[in-house]
Amino acid sequence: MNRREFNLNLLFAVPALVSLIPQAPSPLRVNGERVNAHLRELAQFGKTPEGGTHRLAYTDADLQARQYAMRLMREAKLEVSIDAAGNIVGRRAGSDTALKPLMIGSHIDSVPAGGSYDGQVGSMGAIEVAETLAENNVRLRHPLEVVLFQNEEGGTIGSAALAKGLTEKDLSIVTNSKKTIREGIKFIGGDTDKLASAVRKKGDPAGYVELHIEQGGILHREKINIGVVEGIVGVFWWDVTIEGFANHAGTTPMNQRHDALLAAAKYIDAVNRIVTSMPGRQVGTVGKIQAFPGAFNIVPGSVTTSLGLRDLDAAKVQMIYEKIQAEVRQIEAATGTKFDFKQNSASQPAPTDARFRRVIDDAARQLGFTTKLMPSGAGHDAQEIALLCPVGMIFVPSRDGISHSPREFSEPADITNGANVLLHTLLKLDAMNLN
Amino acid sequence: MNRREFNLNLLFAVPALVSLIPQAPSPLRVNGERVNAHLRELAQFGKTPEGGTHRLAYTDADLQARQYAMRLMREAKLEVSIDAAGNIVGRRAGSDTALKPLMIGSHIDSVPAGGSYDGQVGSMGAIEVAETLAENNVRLRHPLEVVLFQNEEGGTIGSAALAKGLTEKDLSIVTNSKKTIREGIKFIGGDTDKLASAVRKKGDPAGYVELHIEQGGILHREKINIGVVEGIVGVFWWDVTIEGFANHAGTTPMNQRHDALLAAAKYIDAVNRIVTSMPGRQVGTVGKIQAFPGAFNIVPGSVTTSLGLRDLDAAKVQMIYEKIQAEVRQIEAATGTKFDFKQNSASQPAPTDARFRRVIDDAARQLGFTTKLMPSGAGHDAQEIALLCPVGMIFVPSRDGISHSPREFSEPADITNGANVLLHTLLKLDAMNLN
Repeated sequence: MNRREFNLNLLFAVPALVSLIPQAPSPLRVNGERVNAHLRELAQFGKTPEGGTHRLAYTDADLQARQYAMRLMREAKLEVSIDAAGNIVGRRAGSDTALKPLMIGSHIDSVPAGGSYDGQVGSMGAIEVAETLAENNVRLRHPLEVVLFQNEEGGTIGSAALAKGLTEKDLSIVTNSKKTIREGIKFIGGDTDKLASAVRKKGDPAGYVELHIEQGGILHREKINIGVVEGIVGVFWWDVTIEGFANHAGTTPMNQRHDALLAAAKYIDAVNRIVTSMPGRQVGTVGKIQAFPGAFNIVPGSVTTSLGLRDLDAAKVQMIYEKIQAEVRQIEAATGTKFDFKQNSASQPAPTDARFRRVIDDAARQLGFTTKLMPSGAGHDAQEIALLCPVGMIFVPSRDGISHSPREFSEPADITNGANVLLHTLLKLDAMNLN
Repeated sequence: MNRREFNLNLLFAVPALVSLIPQAPSPLRVNGERVNAHLRELAQFGKTPEGGTHRLAYTDADLQARQYAMRLMREAKLEVSIDAAGNIVGRRAGSDTALKPLMIGSHIDSVPAGGSYDGQVGSMGAIEVAETLAENNVRLRHPLEVVLFQNEEGGTIGSAALAKGLTEKDLSIVTNSKKTIREGIKFIGGDTDKLASAVRKKGDPAGYVELHIEQGGILHREKINIGVVEGIVGVFWWDVTIEGFANHAGTTPMNQRHDALLAAAKYIDAVNRIVTSMPGRQVGTVGKIQAFPGAFNIVPGSVTTSLGLRDLDAAKVQMIYEKIQAEVRQIEAATGTKFDFKQNSASQPAPTDARFRRVIDDAARQLGFTTKLMPSGAGHDAQEIALLCPVGMIFVPSRDGISHSPREFSEPADITNGANVLLHTLLKLDAMNLN
């Protein structure tokens, strides 16, 4: 036990007092060169000619990257295991055996032809935090768990398996690897016969913090070091069909048309106008469209398109949806068409914990960083883990917000900053009474 | 020679006087039951389960229908031949050997899964006119030619071969029959080695009149018997590409997007607004659209779409195009996108002859019919023949304007009316000095 560990343990010996006395900022820092070197090494698995990463869950590249990450975790003095759902769990005991674990982590699988930062920064960052604690002989009060969730890009599969379990239907989904999720879990060392053993109880873990690249370009543009995530927006989306009447584009006068594509155009413009007409960071997107029959010389008789709405507040999404519906009724009347909206599976908003946000913000400021409170427009494993325990997320800048692309890039200094904020957030949370 | 033929010949004996003296309306009428029976019989060739006609040019159904039509033409005392381009020509000599032929006709091929009226009404109508003249022993001053143009639906191929000739490129086009046009012409009895012999000189024929269903629904809706066609509109069209920037639909704030589909929506709405903002019967259509990458959760980075403009006046089309361009510049600025318009082959407007329009209108009114002057929004063989001689077109009502569909329908009475107007137009033109 060196002096620093002794001091820390002394400080944490009276937990009830911890939140009452001002904490002296810890002098601990991660090894920035090491975490960035690990990221570069990780990027070799599934490297593409364009300089990005193609590392689909359940492929050889995924398996090799997992073996690499498990080696790093053992070097960071974590006890490594693979849970029945295929998640990699690195565990270290805490000093207080009555406490539930604090969990940190992310994922190392990528989208097809993706980048080398999404998920990977948070994964290497979490391992770096564990290694920094280990090499400084800092033992936390809580058990520490570093978890690398499997197949995040396929729909937060590993974290869902841990937070609520997988259904038979989930297991039968064919993934981008061509394997079903069931086959994939076996491939990476899980055991689909014992999936129930991977499901955690509510309150276990005690909390979860995930470091991630921002993917939106706001921090990069505004030159802010650290994003404190308010929550992960809910994603609501609909398949939209518009029925008009196909007709000859030469012989049908303008006032006799039932042009489904004209109706679609008015609808797309209305979605944008309604979403941008009110304050807030809600987004609305029409990303898909097809017109039938789809010839230059035929007035389109029908159109299939989409609607996607995201916000931290599900009630606000509902309000926007209703405004869109009201406008659609007018478009129907004006164009002689009929709209149908069919809602697809939605993911509910997952707010982060207010205390966690405050702790992350304090940690970042004490380290001298600028911060910004912001929603996460993208989904993350944290939204699944939020079903079990309070969660927090730390964002670092991502150049131009480009993500899911070989052009995805975060500065090494920003990655180091993020890992230091994760480290100090963990230290502060460990000092708190989280129950 | 019966009394009527004698009288007519007497009347036409002093051609220079004909237009100066009021013509007594001829008592001649077509046999309405017969022309409608012929139409029903013709509809057996390529009949579809839906009750329509699938009679693609250069198929067995086309060949059988052509044999049927040639039989009717011989019964109507026409000398039938197939020209080198595969057009069926039924000829009868006139009384004045110095005159060039008056031509009437249409086509009997159909679009895939089409109807039993488009082209077929004009073809059976023209044969009926010839038969009516023959059985009443009426000899015209001009030679009479009934022409059934081959492959109108594939792009007025037969009439183009007659009016201007076909290129090697035209001959290599693979048609809906899977045969090239070269193979198709051989299949129906033409001779591609002698195509030059099928090309007529300017001024031969002396005039051309085509009876056709309206395809636009205006006559049917307004309960008008006969449409007097002002001309066949020019068809101008462009491939349009819009470049924006694809981005994550969750993480990209609304004001940071370069949404190519939003730009497309504003463009489609602008086309409609500009085209309908000025008087006239111009039409503008956006019929095609594709968004890339085309996922509900990605802001579209690019869009391919189209622009189609039609009017009788090419200068008006140009003016509309320029207004659209001006608006597109504003849309580019507002959405951070870039548009590109690439023009495709255009067909120029083909006005009908003013004298022919007057004659058709007079003939119809003398027969007791209501008339309306109107453009043809669809292309017809008449637009090719307009390169050779003055042309006229007679429209009859088509139920709800539905065309190129098994639901295409014209009332038998309207078909009889149209054939009678064609007959009386022909008689009046024959009496005129057309040179």
